[in-house]
Amino acid sequence: MKYYDFRSDTVTQPTDRMRAMMAKAFVGDDVYEDDPTVKQLEAMSAKILDKESALFVPSGTFGNQLAILTHTKRGDEVILGHDCHIMMHEVGAAAVISGVQLRQVQTHNGNMSAVEIKHMIREEDIHYPDTGLICVENAHSCGSVIGLKQMASIYELAQKHHVPVHLDGARIFNAAHALEVEPRAIAAYSDSIMFCLSKGLCAPVGSMLVGGKTFIDKARKMRKLMGGGLRQVGFLAAAGIVALEDMVDHLSIDHENAKYLAQQLSKIDGIEVLSNRLDINMVFVKFDRTLDEQFVCALNEKGLKINGPENGEYRFVTNYWIDKEAVDLLVEAIKEYI
Amino acid sequence: MKYYDFRSDTVTQPTDRMRAMMAKAFVGDDVYEDDPTVKQLEAMSAKILDKESALFVPSGTFGNQLAILTHTKRGDEVILGHDCHIMMHEVGAAAVISGVQLRQVQTHNGNMSAVEIKHMIREEDIHYPDTGLICVENAHSCGSVIGLKQMASIYELAQKHHVPVHLDGARIFNAAHALEVEPRAIAAYSDSIMFCLSKGLCAPVGSMLVGGKTFIDKARKMRKLMGGGLRQVGFLAAAGIVALEDMVDHLSIDHENAKYLAQQLSKIDGIEVLSNRLDINMVFVKFDRTLDEQFVCALNEKGLKINGPENGEYRFVTNYWIDKEAVDLLVEAIKEYI
Amino acid sequence: MKYYDFRSDTVTQPTDRMRAMMAKAFVGDDVYEDDPTVKQLEAMSAKILDKESALFVPSGTFGNQLAILTHTKRGDEVILGHDCHIMMHEVGAAAVISGVQLRQVQTHNGNMSAVEIKHMIREEDIHYPDTGLICVENAHSCGSVIGLKQMASIYELAQKHHVPVHLDGARIFNAAHALEVEPRAIAAYSDSIMFCLSKGLCAPVGSMLVGGKTFIDKARKMRKLMGGGLRQVGFLAAAGIVALEDMVDHLSIDHENAKYLAQQLSKIDGIEVLSNRLDINMVFVKFDRTLDEQFVCALNEKGLKINGPENGEYRFVTNYWIDKEAVDLLVEAIKEYI
Amino acid sequence: MKYYDFRSDTVTQPTDRMRAMMAKAFVGDDVYEDDPTVKQLEAMSAKILDKESALFVPSGTFGNQLAILTHTKRGDEVILGHDCHIMMHEVGAAAVISGVQLRQVQTHNGNMSAVEIKHMIREEDIHYPDTGLICVENAHSCGSVIGLKQMASIYELAQKHHVPVHLDGARIFNAAHALEVEPRAIAAYSDSIMFCLSKGLCAPVGSMLVGGKTFIDKARKMRKLMGGGLRQVGFLAAAGIVALEDMVDHLSIDHENAKYLAQQLSKIDGIEVLSNRLDINMVFVKFDRTLDEQFVCALNEKGLKINGPENGEYRFVTNYWIDKEAVDLLVEAIKEYI
Repeated sequence: MKYYDFRSDTVTQPTDRMRAMMAKAFVGDDVYEDDPTVKQLEAMSAKILDKESALFVPSGTFGNQLAILTHTKRGDEVILGHDCHIMMHEVGAAAVISGVQLRQVQTHNGNMSAVEIKHMIREEDIHYPDTGLICVENAHSCGSVIGLKQMASIYELAQKHHVPVHLDGARIFNAAHALEVEPRAIAAYSDSIMFCLSKGLCAPVGSMLVGGKTFIDKARKMRKLMGGGLRQVGFLAAAGIVALEDMVDHLSIDHENAKYLAQQLSKIDGIEVLSNRLDINMVFVKFDRTLDEQFVCALNEKGLKINGPENGEYRFVTNYWIDKEAVDLLVEAIKEYI
Repeated sequence: MKYYDFRSDTVTQPTDRMRAMMAKAFVGDDVYEDDPTVKQLEAMSAKILDKESALFVPSGTFGNQLAILTHTKRGDEVILGHDCHIMMHEVGAAAVISGVQLRQVQTHNGNMSAVEIKHMIREEDIHYPDTGLICVENAHSCGSVIGLKQMASIYELAQKHHVPVHLDGARIFNAAHALEVEPRAIAAYSDSIMFCLSKGLCAPVGSMLVGGKTFIDKARKMRKLMGGGLRQVGFLAAAGIVALEDMVDHLSIDHENAKYLAQQLSKIDGIEVLSNRLDINMVFVKFDRTLDEQFVCALNEKGLKINGPENGEYRFVTNYWIDKEAVDLLVEAIKEYI
Repeated sequence: MKYYDFRSDTVTQPTDRMRAMMAKAFVGDDVYEDDPTVKQLEAMSAKILDKESALFVPSGTFGNQLAILTHTKRGDEVILGHDCHIMMHEVGAAAVISGVQLRQVQTHNGNMSAVEIKHMIREEDIHYPDTGLICVENAHSCGSVIGLKQMASIYELAQKHHVPVHLDGARIFNAAHALEVEPRAIAAYSDSIMFCLSKGLCAPVGSMLVGGKTFIDKARKMRKLMGGGLRQVGFLAAAGIVALEDMVDHLSIDHENAKYLAQQLSKIDGIEVLSNRLDINMVFVKFDRTLDEQFVCALNEKGLKINGPENGEYRFVTNYWIDKEAVDLLVEAIKEYI
Repeated sequence: MKYYDFRSDTVTQPTDRMRAMMAKAFVGDDVYEDDPTVKQLEAMSAKILDKESALFVPSGTFGNQLAILTHTKRGDEVILGHDCHIMMHEVGAAAVISGVQLRQVQTHNGNMSAVEIKHMIREEDIHYPDTGLICVENAHSCGSVIGLKQMASIYELAQKHHVPVHLDGARIFNAAHALEVEPRAIAAYSDSIMFCLSKGLCAPVGSMLVGGKTFIDKARKMRKLMGGGLRQVGFLAAAGIVALEDMVDHLSIDHENAKYLAQQLSKIDGIEVLSNRLDINMVFVKFDRTLDEQFVCALNEKGLKINGPENGEYRFVTNYWIDKEAVDLLVEAIKEYI
């Protein structure tokens, strides 16, 4: 049975060209820095974001945690959004691995106020940890993007206080499409960026950590500590290169499909589409009554995979393998169920 | 020169009876559990709060961090108020020592909504840490107390989800006065309580961690790990016993003096007294203009010690060594300065 | 230019069948446990070692550290050999990630005395951490294997004291060849095993953590915390399956080539072959004089890659891509140089 | 009933002059650095060891762990003796609090070979942690002292590699007596020193961390993180000052009594006195048969407190409250029992 998978863009299958390039990749032991394909991908990634260096990491969570481990010293405080991925979906790793305290700014559709952050930056006082890092997420996993102006205001503040900024840019290319700018224009307002080759770009595995040379050199060693020093990983890098070459432009179609899905769902009685969080390839909706678990199963039986609700919201994610017809199927199935 | 010290109640000198009892205390090596005076203080403390056991610890921060270390496993998430002492004034220790993630509820004058906490308790999911502890602070260091009803609602929620509750009761006796209840009535809504013998109770050094026998037995070992296994510490315990015997009732006079101070200050033009945070021995005020550092010095020259502002607020704290006349002196000096 | 790489077996290129199987692998999102190829590899791995469950991890270091994180609680003591991989070559990760103390037994060619371990297991005492884990390495990266009898004596001791045993079996298949037993016969004396698909088995990336179901279920979540929850990782698993199907038997040839290399080198004046550490695919030698860095370069220019010395010893490693002729080339080149 | 307590010198009661000085001590809030008695003790301590600064800490374990936390960054490796106090008797704290890996040198009667340490200092390599600290213990808790020459050789090595040295000098004054040098002559070969005011010096509670100004300034803040920022702790400091003024010279009598005890015990059949570990106030003995727990009880009933054996050895410790007559009583009681 053919499935359309709306659970996440992490479920994306690689393209045929990815498979082909993987099959014939030149590889080497990347711990010895002997893998030419990894080197090529790292150079490409740094160039795209206009930074000095880049490093392949096995996952987005790995890349974010590695950035925290590399930027901070134990006991630092890290300022971030109350609902960002690092805070909500990384199993509390920052306290375990880096021994840092996460200080939460209330976000509004992913946006954080530079004024509120300013109040949170610690002065020198015997009772206070040092502020060691500010983390921004763009596109935010709530479905919104943050404008360049706000990115800039946070970065200026951070620089003034000599605090580095890490950007969780798992979906930075989605953000760039939504903001109609180059990815490097977003990356300009951060010292390090993690972005994913999987998700909407369809590579099977892997993310990139991008930043200054000194930072990446240190991160390379910390990656070994975290168990992320891999061997002939050029196979995954080969797919990653295709992801960057072929797939970035397609994201705008994912965004269109998401907007189309939102539009169709909003016509259905009893569904509220959260239309202020509709910047990328995600549609968040609430139903006016609590649906039982049967809902997910019913759709599944029709070949439509969705996740159960989180905090009362259902999330439907479009991706390369979801076309307009698949969206129509989902809308029909939901309409039928309720 | 005689000083009146409004910086904090931590500055309190011990009473003559404390000195006398310290001088003749029976002591032993408390690591061997051979100190009779410590044992007496621990028994008293447990009894006052109607719990099974208690443990002497060298400071309030030590007691809070020991509670976190004992209740949680590494990687747990701890829910607490965004402006509580553990979050703001303990140098980020919880991430360093316990490896736990602090999740912040927005408080309002120290109060946390049980509904908001409920949304923060984690379900089982591969992306989520476990919720390992909820921390409540009463009296809150913002100057407010939390009512028993709210304490109860949080505790019921916690018990339902099998999450322990730790009470930072550094000033639990102040809270009890303000709420007009016995301290044990507050302690009833938590699994462990830290309270201070110093601060308003005037003992020179030390706090108590109180809770169930199993918890305290484990905490005793973790105290050793944290370097808090002390030797002939019965000297400090002797003062602590006097603190509990003699000083608790006097706190109501500190509260009266604080209210009197607030009343007098509110008559002065250009001063806003934060009257909704006036439950205990603290008065928070804002001036309608920014005072320079000269202000603190000018008062100091008149024998009145105060701290500089934190987040734009000045805090004046009354204590056993501050009588009504001292309050009048402060009011006069401020009036004169501005 | 064609190279023969004696630096490590981690440098092994995948076989053509691996590339073919990777190209057509069925994959899915393994965080959702949707990847059939990963599942197949995990089932195979568990079966080979006669344990309940297995988990794909991105590297051997990752697998070892994940085992420690899963077996222990923070503050535990882990007993291990003074020169094992976890102690020497994992960047101090165990203290950072797991917060455990490593207690070192002096090994002799990788062997640890059960009697010495017995003295190290902690009794209950307020000064002592709990003994949380014993780690054994077999084959040991010093080139030796540990006999089943010694494995058994350590495991019996551990079980008596309710301490789990983790086996760093990065080269467990080499050990099995050397001991002329099935891998499961070695694995029987441990609660968890990490083995590598890369190294001598030639898969490009990845290792397996194998153990009881409860342990692996917990490890799956801890893997997410460490950033090792990967997506369509079935590509790597496909190569891993080939590694287990095709490559295990070939290791005996690597061992033969190593012994042949040792034999030839021992004929050269001024070279001491460490013949008591010649159980697997590694040859350790000392020269009677200190060679300068030129030595490594000189061999490299002849297409022979070797590492510089560690603690005065040179290590030459044979693998699938090193045949007898390559060994002869290395011997000739060394002979010529000195 | 009067007891003579041979379990440890930690059990020492304070002298009358200590009680008198405590009773009238001038104290203040030491977190605000307002306690004149603490300041006096810190200045004395720095001067005695000829270092810039000193800091009061609540225990020896606290002081050692604080030194580690202050000297290192997370993930560093710390080289120390396999049987030193930090390794054996501090509950695994260094991994928990500081996230550092302890690397053990085999000691011989407390002595560590500089040559062996040299091999352990890490070069730069992607697999290696940084060597962040070397810890030396003198006098060693095995009963031996380390000569100045060896101290010097370790310190020179450390300086050459830019690695700081911390001295666990819990009993540095005992070591100084045994070596017939000034304490500062020992301290000269380390960057930081912890020594105890309790133990042989009879103060009830407290230890000093001594070192350079920058180090102590940082340690002061880290002390707050660890919960060791105390308030009117001048009471304990007052006793500490007496300890340094009155008690240091008396230690030589403790040493004489220990030697006398050793001499008397060695005359008894079936007792082996470990005479090469008889440098300070400790006597270690083995019995030629295993004594049952009754032994400890039997002596206890005669007013003689001793500990049970650790690793088959009994330890008897002399102190200020143990005179020659008490030693005779112990010898008689043991003679009678066996």
